[in-house]
Amino acid sequence: MFSKILIANRGEIAVRIIRACRELGIQTVAVYSEADKEALHTELADEAICIGPARASDSYLNVQQILSAAVVTKAEAIHPGFGFLSENSRFASMCEECNITFIGPKSETIDAMGNKINARKLMIEAGVPVIPGSDGALSTVDEALAIADEIGYPVMLKAAAGGGGKGIRKVLTKEELPQHFSSAQQEAKAAFGNDDMYIEKIIYPARHIEVQILGDHFGHVIHLGERDCSLQRNNQKVLEESPSVVITPEKRQAIGDAGVRAAKAVAYRNAGTIEFLMDEAGEFYFMEMNTRIQVEHPITEMVTGVDLVKKQLEIASGYPLSLKQEDIKLQGHAIECRINAENPAYNFAPSPGKIRNLFLPSGGMGLRVDSAMYSGYTIPPYYDSMIAKVIVHGDTREEALNKMHRALWEFVTDGVITNVDFQMDLIHHPNVMAGDYTTAFLQEEFLPNWKAEN
Amino acid sequence: MFSKILIANRGEIAVRIIRACRELGIQTVAVYSEADKEALHTELADEAICIGPARASDSYLNVQQILSAAVVTKAEAIHPGFGFLSENSRFASMCEECNITFIGPKSETIDAMGNKINARKLMIEAGVPVIPGSDGALSTVDEALAIADEIGYPVMLKAAAGGGGKGIRKVLTKEELPQHFSSAQQEAKAAFGNDDMYIEKIIYPARHIEVQILGDHFGHVIHLGERDCSLQRNNQKVLEESPSVVITPEKRQAIGDAGVRAAKAVAYRNAGTIEFLMDEAGEFYFMEMNTRIQVEHPITEMVTGVDLVKKQLEIASGYPLSLKQEDIKLQGHAIECRINAENPAYNFAPSPGKIRNLFLPSGGMGLRVDSAMYSGYTIPPYYDSMIAKVIVHGDTREEALNKMHRALWEFVTDGVITNVDFQMDLIHHPNVMAGDYTTAFLQEEFLPNWKAEN
Repeated sequence: MFSKILIANRGEIAVRIIRACRELGIQTVAVYSEADKEALHTELADEAICIGPARASDSYLNVQQILSAAVVTKAEAIHPGFGFLSENSRFASMCEECNITFIGPKSETIDAMGNKINARKLMIEAGVPVIPGSDGALSTVDEALAIADEIGYPVMLKAAAGGGGKGIRKVLTKEELPQHFSSAQQEAKAAFGNDDMYIEKIIYPARHIEVQILGDHFGHVIHLGERDCSLQRNNQKVLEESPSVVITPEKRQAIGDAGVRAAKAVAYRNAGTIEFLMDEAGEFYFMEMNTRIQVEHPITEMVTGVDLVKKQLEIASGYPLSLKQEDIKLQGHAIECRINAENPAYNFAPSPGKIRNLFLPSGGMGLRVDSAMYSGYTIPPYYDSMIAKVIVHGDTREEALNKMHRALWEFVTDGVITNVDFQMDLIHHPNVMAGDYTTAFLQEEFLPNWKAEN
Repeated sequence: MFSKILIANRGEIAVRIIRACRELGIQTVAVYSEADKEALHTELADEAICIGPARASDSYLNVQQILSAAVVTKAEAIHPGFGFLSENSRFASMCEECNITFIGPKSETIDAMGNKINARKLMIEAGVPVIPGSDGALSTVDEALAIADEIGYPVMLKAAAGGGGKGIRKVLTKEELPQHFSSAQQEAKAAFGNDDMYIEKIIYPARHIEVQILGDHFGHVIHLGERDCSLQRNNQKVLEESPSVVITPEKRQAIGDAGVRAAKAVAYRNAGTIEFLMDEAGEFYFMEMNTRIQVEHPITEMVTGVDLVKKQLEIASGYPLSLKQEDIKLQGHAIECRINAENPAYNFAPSPGKIRNLFLPSGGMGLRVDSAMYSGYTIPPYYDSMIAKVIVHGDTREEALNKMHRALWEFVTDGVITNVDFQMDLIHHPNVMAGDYTTAFLQEEFLPNWKAEN
């Protein structure tokens, strides 16, 4: 096992990783921006190195500074967390060149899955169902029109190198296509230096179902069940749960097997997630692979009892995966609510600032709050607005929802506006209580009513 | 299920019960002393009623005030927590008379187990092994001498109505007995109005092993494994763990069965604990029964997944116990450290006061902190010094110990001295790390060395 690692991240995920390391006897090096001098991850790590100004591009995305910090502190490995450099294959390969273990898949794997056209091709070869669409890169409008005619409108135009919602367009009719095609292509060229485009049918209504994967260096891959992440606003997940109410044991085996096949197709190692869309008929389609730990990983931990971050560290240090597929049993039901410093009443505008008084719900059974806050902490305005994750586990979905209600009810962040009340309203909506929702529900059904009432 | 209950307690256990009630949709009434106006249990309950001055005898032990509060608020039941009125059979029967459910066993059961001579007799009849000793009440020194000769010195002299360490004497030799007998008898007369005495052999070295029981109103009783509570100072538990390293599966079945027999012998209902002493040969002997929820109940919850407080509420409201013995599987290992506001370096003198800044460890897997503190809270000087319980769960005992280390390391209560560092030293002692300790270890081996070094 490693004796010292560097955590190239901030906030609750950096704290989560530091805690796992301390439990494993691994020394930790935090890196922090000038805005994070008093952040909890800076406090809790054994060593902490300032890597630059507040702006992420100057600090948490500053590859040179981070690698220097790792070399100076003799860190044997780097955990990238999620966001920032976690899916940057160049960073992963530079780690490899510096003889520092990148805690994640090989840089080639990140590349292979990062190009969406390539990923589609690999999945088709592996027998994983993909969304009907184009097979290779489209470079002209005519090619796009031909494919769209074949699969039928509406369709989604996407950039091969896409990410962060860039280079993506919804096309409702044939007439709209030419204009959207050229604007998306230009956007992709500007953002990624690559204007390859592809087309997919729009799966709607759909549920976002993702499968958690663990793979080791010896080709052993297992899945840890699914997460239902259909409750989203602007393609950002808001509330996740595991298991999904729409997944039967047979469907779990099918989608889990597909996830394992997808991972094996790229010799995947470490923790990863295969995202699928599932239509009303229960057919599921590969959407993309996230080659890193995810925000919502704790709900899988709660239902499986497996500490995914510890597994990441074990796998990266070369241990074979000690778990077999038959060891994974989903017990009970887990739900996560993302708590953001934002004002839902003002179109979710970020609301950073000083938390004069903090009270995090705790105690009792099956409740976990992952956060990097403390009383008196000032949330800086420079980064993602997520400040905590409330995760609950109950014997039943109903018990988990009741526990979430209790936890949100106790949550206090005096001085900072959050989405706690919004989440409270969400979990009490009849559709959410019944588990009856798709990816469109929050944005198109819940939010308009909520805005009218708030 | 009840729609409203009153919680006749304070501190973390009152908060624990309020939280369970909120998750079950039960309204809660807190009672509080004048010193607890700003206590967390007062804040979190749906209603809160002041029941008198700070001194417990004027408030938390004030039966009239508490019953009045229940009647006024139309509470259907009272949860007594632990300590205070929880084992007061008169209070239990007064609740019954007021048509308010006492959440615990029948008052006769509390009485039956409260008289230690009677409890011994019942246990012998039920085939539960008891400590060798006298069979009935001894009223003269000569009777005591005869029995002591028979079982052999050293022996323990105890008052039948004993409790709180009163009317109890360790007798090393025949010569000491007469003097100890009369002083203990006088003390018992003064404290309990009953000078019946009995004698037990001293089991030494021994482990304190207790069995958690749940029984419903229909005669169904199960056990939930054991807790090892051998680490004690002045007969106060300091650190508890489940399972015990000295209990094999066969022994667990034997001691669990004995616990169930003991409970059935008194038609026990609700949650209860049978305490045993186990000698080096692995023989175990009934010590006493605690007819209430215990401080250390969370470690059983962590290894069994059963929420004991919710079960108490279900049972008291008349539901049959939904669990069967074969449903209970111990998974992993749990440890609890009691965090007290006390100064170990000054003979554990209580250290109440204002917590200027509080940071409770949280996040990650398998960690739970039950507490009633918040930043800025002032710990009053009138009550028990326990301010928090840190409970961890790991796949293995080693993982649980490492997690406890991490949790204690993060714990901050600026402004108030606690035993956190003492607990940290305790969990790192080779004997504790190896699980090799008896009830004498902390007091006689660990503490003298610790004092010499601190």
